[in-house]
Amino acid sequence: MALIGRPLRLGVVGGGPGSFIGPIHRSAAVLDGCFRVVAGVVTSRPERAAVQGAAVGLDEARSYSNVDEMIKLEAQRVDGQGIEAVAVMTPNDCHFAECSAAMQAGLHVICDKPLANSVEEARALVLLARQTGVVFCLTHNYSGYPMVRQARAMVEQGALGAIRMVNAEYLQGGMASAVESGPLSDKLKWKLDATRGGPSLVMGDIGTHAHHLASFVAVSPVTRVAADVGSIVPDRQFDDFAGMLWRFANGARGVCCVSQAAAGAENNVTVRVYGERGMLEWQHAVPNYLRHSPLGEPARTLGRGDPYLLPAAQCATRISRGHPEGFRESFANLYADFAALIAARLTSTDPDPLALRIPTVEDGLRGILFVDAALQSSRQGGGWVNCALE
Amino acid sequence: MALIGRPLRLGVVGGGPGSFIGPIHRSAAVLDGCFRVVAGVVTSRPERAAVQGAAVGLDEARSYSNVDEMIKLEAQRVDGQGIEAVAVMTPNDCHFAECSAAMQAGLHVICDKPLANSVEEARALVLLARQTGVVFCLTHNYSGYPMVRQARAMVEQGALGAIRMVNAEYLQGGMASAVESGPLSDKLKWKLDATRGGPSLVMGDIGTHAHHLASFVAVSPVTRVAADVGSIVPDRQFDDFAGMLWRFANGARGVCCVSQAAAGAENNVTVRVYGERGMLEWQHAVPNYLRHSPLGEPARTLGRGDPYLLPAAQCATRISRGHPEGFRESFANLYADFAALIAARLTSTDPDPLALRIPTVEDGLRGILFVDAALQSSRQGGGWVNCALE
Amino acid sequence: MALIGRPLRLGVVGGGPGSFIGPIHRSAAVLDGCFRVVAGVVTSRPERAAVQGAAVGLDEARSYSNVDEMIKLEAQRVDGQGIEAVAVMTPNDCHFAECSAAMQAGLHVICDKPLANSVEEARALVLLARQTGVVFCLTHNYSGYPMVRQARAMVEQGALGAIRMVNAEYLQGGMASAVESGPLSDKLKWKLDATRGGPSLVMGDIGTHAHHLASFVAVSPVTRVAADVGSIVPDRQFDDFAGMLWRFANGARGVCCVSQAAAGAENNVTVRVYGERGMLEWQHAVPNYLRHSPLGEPARTLGRGDPYLLPAAQCATRISRGHPEGFRESFANLYADFAALIAARLTSTDPDPLALRIPTVEDGLRGILFVDAALQSSRQGGGWVNCALE
Amino acid sequence: MALIGRPLRLGVVGGGPGSFIGPIHRSAAVLDGCFRVVAGVVTSRPERAAVQGAAVGLDEARSYSNVDEMIKLEAQRVDGQGIEAVAVMTPNDCHFAECSAAMQAGLHVICDKPLANSVEEARALVLLARQTGVVFCLTHNYSGYPMVRQARAMVEQGALGAIRMVNAEYLQGGMASAVESGPLSDKLKWKLDATRGGPSLVMGDIGTHAHHLASFVAVSPVTRVAADVGSIVPDRQFDDFAGMLWRFANGARGVCCVSQAAAGAENNVTVRVYGERGMLEWQHAVPNYLRHSPLGEPARTLGRGDPYLLPAAQCATRISRGHPEGFRESFANLYADFAALIAARLTSTDPDPLALRIPTVEDGLRGILFVDAALQSSRQGGGWVNCALE
Repeated sequence: MALIGRPLRLGVVGGGPGSFIGPIHRSAAVLDGCFRVVAGVVTSRPERAAVQGAAVGLDEARSYSNVDEMIKLEAQRVDGQGIEAVAVMTPNDCHFAECSAAMQAGLHVICDKPLANSVEEARALVLLARQTGVVFCLTHNYSGYPMVRQARAMVEQGALGAIRMVNAEYLQGGMASAVESGPLSDKLKWKLDATRGGPSLVMGDIGTHAHHLASFVAVSPVTRVAADVGSIVPDRQFDDFAGMLWRFANGARGVCCVSQAAAGAENNVTVRVYGERGMLEWQHAVPNYLRHSPLGEPARTLGRGDPYLLPAAQCATRISRGHPEGFRESFANLYADFAALIAARLTSTDPDPLALRIPTVEDGLRGILFVDAALQSSRQGGGWVNCALE
Repeated sequence: MALIGRPLRLGVVGGGPGSFIGPIHRSAAVLDGCFRVVAGVVTSRPERAAVQGAAVGLDEARSYSNVDEMIKLEAQRVDGQGIEAVAVMTPNDCHFAECSAAMQAGLHVICDKPLANSVEEARALVLLARQTGVVFCLTHNYSGYPMVRQARAMVEQGALGAIRMVNAEYLQGGMASAVESGPLSDKLKWKLDATRGGPSLVMGDIGTHAHHLASFVAVSPVTRVAADVGSIVPDRQFDDFAGMLWRFANGARGVCCVSQAAAGAENNVTVRVYGERGMLEWQHAVPNYLRHSPLGEPARTLGRGDPYLLPAAQCATRISRGHPEGFRESFANLYADFAALIAARLTSTDPDPLALRIPTVEDGLRGILFVDAALQSSRQGGGWVNCALE
Repeated sequence: MALIGRPLRLGVVGGGPGSFIGPIHRSAAVLDGCFRVVAGVVTSRPERAAVQGAAVGLDEARSYSNVDEMIKLEAQRVDGQGIEAVAVMTPNDCHFAECSAAMQAGLHVICDKPLANSVEEARALVLLARQTGVVFCLTHNYSGYPMVRQARAMVEQGALGAIRMVNAEYLQGGMASAVESGPLSDKLKWKLDATRGGPSLVMGDIGTHAHHLASFVAVSPVTRVAADVGSIVPDRQFDDFAGMLWRFANGARGVCCVSQAAAGAENNVTVRVYGERGMLEWQHAVPNYLRHSPLGEPARTLGRGDPYLLPAAQCATRISRGHPEGFRESFANLYADFAALIAARLTSTDPDPLALRIPTVEDGLRGILFVDAALQSSRQGGGWVNCALE
Repeated sequence: MALIGRPLRLGVVGGGPGSFIGPIHRSAAVLDGCFRVVAGVVTSRPERAAVQGAAVGLDEARSYSNVDEMIKLEAQRVDGQGIEAVAVMTPNDCHFAECSAAMQAGLHVICDKPLANSVEEARALVLLARQTGVVFCLTHNYSGYPMVRQARAMVEQGALGAIRMVNAEYLQGGMASAVESGPLSDKLKWKLDATRGGPSLVMGDIGTHAHHLASFVAVSPVTRVAADVGSIVPDRQFDDFAGMLWRFANGARGVCCVSQAAAGAENNVTVRVYGERGMLEWQHAVPNYLRHSPLGEPARTLGRGDPYLLPAAQCATRISRGHPEGFRESFANLYADFAALIAARLTSTDPDPLALRIPTVEDGLRGILFVDAALQSSRQGGGWVNCALE
């Protein structure tokens, strides 16, 4: 899908050798030919840039050790073939500066969640995105799954009628043991450091995912939250659990539970939306299917690639029905839409409305407001706290 | 299983022709030969007692129209073969008087939930049960399912280690439409009348079930709740939704969601308990199975009737593995235990400790305290309210 | 459901203390009030009849040790309240004589499968049933499950169009180990004795079930079979496996696999029927649901008790949607229909057409012909053998 | 995973614009950096080579219209950077000539199944592979799924003990309607032409997949088959159904059913292997999980990425547990192993034994022998026919 007759040129920041998310980003970016990864910063040590860059497929000359350097030198290339977009997959505390630098240089940005570590930073990024006019995509990749898009499209179409209840869950077991007592991986080092990972590990890591996914499918933002945030592992100094009640702008209520210390869970993301005429349920463990249970009729299982799906799901599908796609393709769908929006800018055309559904910098701010409100509610004994954008 | 060489004599109150729960009670009571249904009150109109009684298999002479009359006449029988226990399955506002009368007459009682419509009534019933020393069983029948008992027994054995998180859900769709606008069934008439059905429809009907089930499997009572209780159907005058955060005596946290207006749900009861070493999940839709996901090992599906089950589950199973049992048998398990406890009294022997797990009148009081606390929390803006028994 | 204002009087043969199937029969017979178990033969030893009979709830005076005696004495009762029907749940080699005696006495018969141990016996029973005009029900209880009846009714209605492929499976693991080497239970003793259990253990025990279930749902008899029958456990002297290709009268093809040595299986009965417009699947492990996957549309999960079900399923349901029923109720449905057919005779009315769907003595003969043909095919190296009734 | 410090150079044959399998091959080949797609034949028309090649990312200069031309010109490149391997994804009747040409030129080959359209061709390819010593991989990609590899490794380890029964199924619904009556796609044109698609559509398309998958997991070849092959759609001139009984070299028996006219199926591939100590089941619809039901213990669900998996599964996993992978990655695993074997040749080192598990040209021959035997059995009335390689 070479939207403008050629792939866009992407520079990556982070995701070096050993990274989980790095290969996902890079393979997703190129999967449809929308991007080529032509430059990157995968180490902060200049002496290692060549080797580390080569390990992820970067040319030595374009493997930098510093974002500002990459931005500057790429812009100065004599061939005019410098990067057009930046993919940020660094520790959370780096997002603000790196995204800011990229946007100020007029580069489009695709950035991992959470957007930033404070409401102030998040607001500043929203402002900067508006001022610079670049395309900004936040990788809430669950909204990139075809059947999640089908769910949203069905809600938009009114398949459920008015939405009344939204329940979401994101449970992992990786922190069920006291991993903080053992030798820490590089990843854990920054994650467990609140100045780097943010004020609440569980809320930043997965709470924001559950929040975006629920809002995305419910087609309505969360406006209030009442929360119990803390640790369910004794003597732990960081948050690994959050139970939440929430209210949506459309009036829906519901509960949300996220935990990284749910022993026995793997990476269980579930969203269920109930409306006046039925419900929809999506589970990450079986991502190619969507359950639709209409009131008074048999429950239905919709499958990715099936002919009756709505355009929003059809266009996010590469392989035909019955041939499972997965996590990688969910990222690729964000990249494809990100590319489509950039291409529309470059060609001064109207973008595909479906591509506009990617998580935006505003969504990122909503996530940070949600985290902030949940923490405040929990601290003050569990009552309601506003988290609406306006 | 004739515990004392003969079935016990049971009188039923409620559950007449057309009732959903009546046939369940009666067939469950006799399934193992523990009881015979020898008398009953299935109508309050004397002129209909004979016909209505016959329709449910009662002898004309022992089909009464009044509980006090039944108790009195049964006690005066010249053959000395009057009822020994009473099964109460009347509207909620009748439970207090009927249970009280039965207990005061020295009759053992098995009563539908919720125990009563107020904390005061519930406390009074607890006191009376203690004073009279009768056996009292509340029909939180989900705790009668063999695999729920297996879950509890595993938690007791320490299979999960310390319990950290407990999530429960009970969702029905029967109130998704505005049934209150149409002609009301007899059942709905009293259920929608707060003076008869109790202060909160959803909490009394199913919130108490979720509460008991979670406590039963977690082997720990709920001590605090923060709740959002109300209606998700516009213009509705009664509660059909409750989102809750809760804390357990053992320190566990979690969320609970109950609704009768969840369009597309059927009768979805789910409980999940997470401990330091894994989790257990039970779903009512597949009641013969229990999922156990130990930390770092493959998830396991335990099946009713399988040889590795613990005694608590084995003794609650009648049909061999692979041959599904259901709702009826869950009630029969409560009746069997109820009978075992009565038989122990009659024979002055120690009861089977497993039979002591039936829901008690104290559990009933805990349920009413939970409802009361949830409503209070919701009214005051969602903060924590204590609901511990002491 | 007292069809003629009173329960019918049933005598049981077999199913004494320790039996698996005895309590199922007895509780199923009385579940809806269609029958009362008033007499029985639960031991062949006269000196034990009183005690063994009492253990299953029989009056001492009507607990016999001999079928002929029961038939004779019940017919001679001065109160005229002798048994009207007989339930046969004895070892396979007893069916022929017991059913014959009952039918010759004008008693209606409900008999466990397989009908008999030879084609000759089976044909004779068919003849006798026709001559005597009694109602005969064979307990292929899988056809008593509401969702199996729904499947058949949908096929009859044309929901799938013409039926093209039918696959069935019945797998158990109880014989995966060399149980024949250990001390044998009474049940295994006769089952493993071909003169008592029949020519092929696996085919008689479960092959006939798979055969009837497939024919029932496909609404078409099996006409030809090509089979591989034998043992998959080394050095075993009896059949524990059968792989089969089959053809149906309606032209459908398919495969069938049954085994009692499938280690890891529990009691896995599955039938899938594919037509020109979609497929239906039913699995015993989740008996309250039926999967319907229409061509080009989302798959649907139909639930027992749901409002859209056809009358054949609705009338076989006692408990509302979301409240699981099981194996016991599947037997009770056969008993209810059996009673309805008897009642129609007694009242000279037309029976409910839905009740006519119970497995008949002709179905029993079809099963025996199927076993015979499969064994013949296997012996001769696997080609097609006819097994049609005519 | 640049095994020799650089990606291998791959030429593709087939898979041009509009192809289903083309993008799968190309993205799978590059996913781990094992290959670069540097040349190809994606059209047979010289005048379209440039445009069609560009559409799939080929340089104009290396987009050929003829395999022989590609092989010749690539070998003559002055930079010595010609292709080292060929990926064949053309209609079945082209495989023989293309694979032969590639092997004769010393190029390694990865080829879509079925290997060829006749036993003679298949035998010739086996011979040629042996003579030339090239690496040959047949894309039975189901054996590339991590959990299928886990299943095989468990069987090899003896987790099930001796294998006794193997059942497989591959059902699709795409031919449930009379697609042959409508306008034919290019793909259907050659598939429905027996001289191009082979003697039996269903057996070549999916029967060979089921056959390989079953043999792979059972760790034993199929030696005999008894089959019913034909059409279940009226008036159809090609095979769309095959029911089969089979025997394996290890003594196991079982059934296999494949159909492309199973209305309501999507792409349902299932394999189940039963041994003396339990069973394993894998279903394509939930490819990241493997069910293991040990005799007498709870069934287990193993998940891709989980820490307890065997090396064969671990090394075929890119993304951590709980993050679904799919069809694309199954192909990539074949490519990775294919590359590992080539790299071992290039570096004169011993290959990773796990990489040797890729489907070989001998496996391809086994598949063609299986098709041939099944057709012969069906024609002659369903008896057993030998299909062993020797």
